[in-house]
Amino acid sequence: VVVDVLRATSTIVEALANGARSVFPVATMEDALRLAQNLGRESVVLCGERGCLPIPGFDLGNSPAEFTAERIGERQLVMTTTNGTGALLAAGSAAETLVGSFLNLGAVAAALAETERDVVLVAAGREKRFALEDALLAGALVREVEALGRRPALNDSALAARLLAAGNAGRLEQRLRLTAAGRQLIETGHEADLRLCADVDRHRVVPTFRERKVTL
Amino acid sequence: VVVDVLRATSTIVEALANGARSVFPVATMEDALRLAQNLGRESVVLCGERGCLPIPGFDLGNSPAEFTAERIGERQLVMTTTNGTGALLAAGSAAETLVGSFLNLGAVAAALAETERDVVLVAAGREKRFALEDALLAGALVREVEALGRRPALNDSALAARLLAAGNAGRLEQRLRLTAAGRQLIETGHEADLRLCADVDRHRVVPTFRERKVTL
Repeated sequence: VVVDVLRATSTIVEALANGARSVFPVATMEDALRLAQNLGRESVVLCGERGCLPIPGFDLGNSPAEFTAERIGERQLVMTTTNGTGALLAAGSAAETLVGSFLNLGAVAAALAETERDVVLVAAGREKRFALEDALLAGALVREVEALGRRPALNDSALAARLLAAGNAGRLEQRLRLTAAGRQLIETGHEADLRLCADVDRHRVVPTFRERKVTL
Repeated sequence: VVVDVLRATSTIVEALANGARSVFPVATMEDALRLAQNLGRESVVLCGERGCLPIPGFDLGNSPAEFTAERIGERQLVMTTTNGTGALLAAGSAAETLVGSFLNLGAVAAALAETERDVVLVAAGREKRFALEDALLAGALVREVEALGRRPALNDSALAARLLAAGNAGRLEQRLRLTAAGRQLIETGHEADLRLCADVDRHRVVPTFRERKVTL
């Protein structure tokens, strides 16, 4: 399960729940432009960010609220972001790769509670460093899986995440505001994204990443 | 501040508080034997562990309770452990390097509250991975520094550690038992060490690492 709460995986969940056909995560802006050309530029929505800001020449940024049914319904999206798309590509060799966010917490937890596989929660983090918001989601996933009656063995990271998430209820948005990514979003004028990314169980979808693209 | 709660930095604090003259951390068993030879084998206490177990031919293991005044008073110690001594050596290039544990939590926090320098809490971890017990101490240090009236800017790791440590009071030993390192100590017959390593403010000392050795 790849998680990049602020904001890539939240945006992917929102986009697919709102009717996007698929999301192709790519590493660089050049890769994005090349793939859009190959798929047919006019049939593709190019989206993503660098330093929280939209990329010149792209159709959309990385604010989930931009991904309305009108703009992205039935479309193929090509997305590149600072942390999340790279984490997805890195995790793509797993037997199964899911996309997690607070928006689809319950749906992903239900999928995890049913698997007999080992589960790795891949926190995208922030430029190779720890990001608190991703740990809060990882811990919330552990807690939800346990609430469904499973008792997975936890390594120390999962144990810590689980302890951290105990305090999420009722103050998730406030916690997101304290993180480095949250502060950067506020500084760059994306404060509204924090509320949307903290909207637990907004959608009942489980996106999976397979053969270069994320679909439901 | 280097922290390896289970057990290297707890043992170093206990040893120095009980009268050891100095502790030389070294990376390998070979380095330990060579340094002991150079310092004069009979004047040195060789100590440490691999896989939680004492090293054949060494005088002591890595249980803090072994480091009584009778055994190590006024002696020079040469120590090698799986994680902690390596972390100390890696942090040795800092302007000032302190040794932290729950045993000397308040004393280290008081030193940190007085400095104007940036502070890095180096969690030794466990074979290059995250260890919960070290995060619990890092967070306890942040909280104590704040209790002394300082409001340091915190990165996401420090913020997470601070949230984690909020639940330490009254259940620290129980938390240590849940960690991977704690479970391994119990399995290898070192259960008593957990209580000692959770003995907050047992000593009022601030060991510093300088010129290859740790002293008070």
